[in-house]
Amino acid sequence: MSVDSNASLQPLFYPKTIAVIGASPDGDAFRWGGKTFIEGLVKQNFRGKVFPVHPKAETVLGFKVYKSVSDIPDEVDLAIFSVPASAVLQVMADCVKKRVKFAHIFTAGFSETGLEDRAQLEKDLVTLASEGGVRVVGPNCMGVYCPDAGVAWVKDFPAETGPVGFVSQSGQLAGHFIEESKARGIRFSKVISYGNASDLQCHEFLRYLAADEQTAIVGSYIEGLKDGRAFFDIARELTLKKPFVVWKGGHTEGGSRAVSSHTASIAGSHHLWRALCKQTGIISVSSIEELVSTIVALQDLPQPQGPNVAIVGGAGGGSVTMTDAAERAGLKVPHLSEATIKGLSEFVPVHGQSVKNPLDIFSVLINPEHFMSMIELLRDDPRIDALLYYQRVEWALNRAKGFLDVILQMTLDGARALKKPLFLVLADATTLEGEILRRQARERYNSAGMASFPTFDAAARAVYNLSEYQRYLSSRS
Amino acid sequence: MSVDSNASLQPLFYPKTIAVIGASPDGDAFRWGGKTFIEGLVKQNFRGKVFPVHPKAETVLGFKVYKSVSDIPDEVDLAIFSVPASAVLQVMADCVKKRVKFAHIFTAGFSETGLEDRAQLEKDLVTLASEGGVRVVGPNCMGVYCPDAGVAWVKDFPAETGPVGFVSQSGQLAGHFIEESKARGIRFSKVISYGNASDLQCHEFLRYLAADEQTAIVGSYIEGLKDGRAFFDIARELTLKKPFVVWKGGHTEGGSRAVSSHTASIAGSHHLWRALCKQTGIISVSSIEELVSTIVALQDLPQPQGPNVAIVGGAGGGSVTMTDAAERAGLKVPHLSEATIKGLSEFVPVHGQSVKNPLDIFSVLINPEHFMSMIELLRDDPRIDALLYYQRVEWALNRAKGFLDVILQMTLDGARALKKPLFLVLADATTLEGEILRRQARERYNSAGMASFPTFDAAARAVYNLSEYQRYLSSRS
Repeated sequence: MSVDSNASLQPLFYPKTIAVIGASPDGDAFRWGGKTFIEGLVKQNFRGKVFPVHPKAETVLGFKVYKSVSDIPDEVDLAIFSVPASAVLQVMADCVKKRVKFAHIFTAGFSETGLEDRAQLEKDLVTLASEGGVRVVGPNCMGVYCPDAGVAWVKDFPAETGPVGFVSQSGQLAGHFIEESKARGIRFSKVISYGNASDLQCHEFLRYLAADEQTAIVGSYIEGLKDGRAFFDIARELTLKKPFVVWKGGHTEGGSRAVSSHTASIAGSHHLWRALCKQTGIISVSSIEELVSTIVALQDLPQPQGPNVAIVGGAGGGSVTMTDAAERAGLKVPHLSEATIKGLSEFVPVHGQSVKNPLDIFSVLINPEHFMSMIELLRDDPRIDALLYYQRVEWALNRAKGFLDVILQMTLDGARALKKPLFLVLADATTLEGEILRRQARERYNSAGMASFPTFDAAARAVYNLSEYQRYLSSRS
Repeated sequence: MSVDSNASLQPLFYPKTIAVIGASPDGDAFRWGGKTFIEGLVKQNFRGKVFPVHPKAETVLGFKVYKSVSDIPDEVDLAIFSVPASAVLQVMADCVKKRVKFAHIFTAGFSETGLEDRAQLEKDLVTLASEGGVRVVGPNCMGVYCPDAGVAWVKDFPAETGPVGFVSQSGQLAGHFIEESKARGIRFSKVISYGNASDLQCHEFLRYLAADEQTAIVGSYIEGLKDGRAFFDIARELTLKKPFVVWKGGHTEGGSRAVSSHTASIAGSHHLWRALCKQTGIISVSSIEELVSTIVALQDLPQPQGPNVAIVGGAGGGSVTMTDAAERAGLKVPHLSEATIKGLSEFVPVHGQSVKNPLDIFSVLINPEHFMSMIELLRDDPRIDALLYYQRVEWALNRAKGFLDVILQMTLDGARALKKPLFLVLADATTLEGEILRRQARERYNSAGMASFPTFDAAARAVYNLSEYQRYLSSRS
């Protein structure tokens, strides 16, 4: 991985100066526009200078507005285009003259429309830019979120940084992912939405993140690749250093059609894709939930060294169906070791509660001392790689006031003592009161740096994905 | 379907008298016991007589307590056993003497423990009962919920009746299903949890529901079948009259092991199961969410005549991934007819919004007039069998106060005008405020008798399941 390529994208993620072109002061919350970008920069405490550009406005959000890029008194690292498609060539000509380093074209209406003249306009734009030394992000995208630099396209994105880098072809999904992540305790180093990828492509951003010291985990949403070879080359390098989770959109016939009208990409075959992921160690996911769950598990939990799980917290039919779901996800639910069974029998009543796996042992889940004994037995059980614990906080509603605190603390202590990953499922609540408790519990776990999962299926998929990645790593070492 | 068999189970679902044996007055909310059952009957306004039985207690919840079943002055239709396993033979002997019609054995600790003496005790119990003319439900189960008769094992089950009959081997899953259903607008005719099925079996309950005029839709959770032939015989008859949705637990190796320690059943092969479902028109589901979503769609929506869906409410990458999810679920996302495209183009701006399928047309979703025009175009489009509409109510938080009402009313009007099923997905909210809005919207839809779905995947699976059932019916007509 060359340091050069990193140095070369540095001003995109850490611009000292940003021109926001088309920064009309009348943008409202539901019409994206230059003003929205400026609000994002203000709210995120961007530490560089902001130069709004608009032919008519005087000021916007207290910033002096420049008539043209040429009038800006400083150098410009990044220019955000929020102008009609018909104006982009003129604005790009100004940027070339100004020696702008990066242009993020938020404007849409290019090759993704399927119209020939629009595709030609995109080509002309990129030709003009590259001949003039301007690198282009987009068009038809949201650009950069780098909390470390105070850059974000939505003012409510978290201001704290974290270990996750994310590269997304879709701005909508990047935004959705960041919002979901916020509630689940995931924080970001850098996120980029790159749209039609007319110039800068996925593999170039990945190369940057591979070398970026603040990024420990890389995720991506991709619709199509213009240079598949370069992508898999960097993926193969990347996965040996950092886990790389990819959600590929447009797998199906209809999805592939939707891709072409979204970012004008060719989606490619699902079959081929899965084979390439296996070969290169990419963790392939297929929903936003699986993406979030896999990444939060990579961020917060010790890694499972195999696919063997113990299941706790089901009861009766629930134990059966959780086991089905775990094995459907690719996991094993093996017999516990004799030592574990013997140890459990000492405090689990034989009738009505089962010491088999899944462990159908309600009494242990409300007794911190027994819970810790169970944890220690599972910690020492060589047949078990991870614990899947389905926790229903809703029933704390009928209990004494301090009850939930006891349960949450017990769970946190147990997770720490286990030394193996504890995948905690916070079961869906039927009542609003239960839902409020569930969100409180999630907050408590988040703030202790412990992942939780909204469904058993999501947790089981995450265990499987992580254990497969560990298997890939050991096959390569 | 013989009327006899129905008449024979009538006193189980509509008992005139219930003896609750082991009705100790000190049952608390977390220990199931006779008192809990009596509370259920009181809260549900059971219209028959309740006779608590306990050797020591005098009264419980205001009811006079009898020392023994023999002391009860009336005939007894149903006796609920909530006594230790060691006492069941004696109590059954009393029931035989009393000529009790049905015994529901809530007590656990029989063949499901895997212990030989416990399995023998179960056999002895059933032999004693059947020789004495008492039919047995269970052991190890929750028994009957029949709101029409005021019978329920949990006091908070809905008191209103509805068209759904449900037969469950697991009491825990039956309870979970009823709770989930409550929030989703599903109401029940009869539910039975039958546990180890030592005497009365699944197919006998199904036979009753097939003939029951209050039941229009039948669901089931099954772990194993003691008489598979009888089950598929009744299933084949049933599916021609009423849709029959089955969740089979214990599909996987580990799940099958869990089954044996739960209800002592042999789970059987998944492969064979799917083949038998296809042959008999059973709608096979594999999660609680799929079960609830399929049943609520059967209850509330017109039935899709094919697998071709139009998708609305995604944006950008969301449209792509929804299309992927729909096709993964077995649906088609076809091109719209030329008439539809032409009609849409009249009010959908060409750039930035797509008139292709999926329809990426935000502006139409906040304009009731345009929305209705879109509905009418889809109604008349022969290529489309159903509409999948992903609705994000959370963004109403940033809008004027009446905005959400307008959107909900527009959706209800549209669903009515469409004449085809509209599968409405109420998207997950990230904030608690959004979640409250989402629950309000769901309530509003529920009370208008319109199904909604918590995830796009769940809705897509439901469309597929219903369209496959329609296909089965036309192949048989």
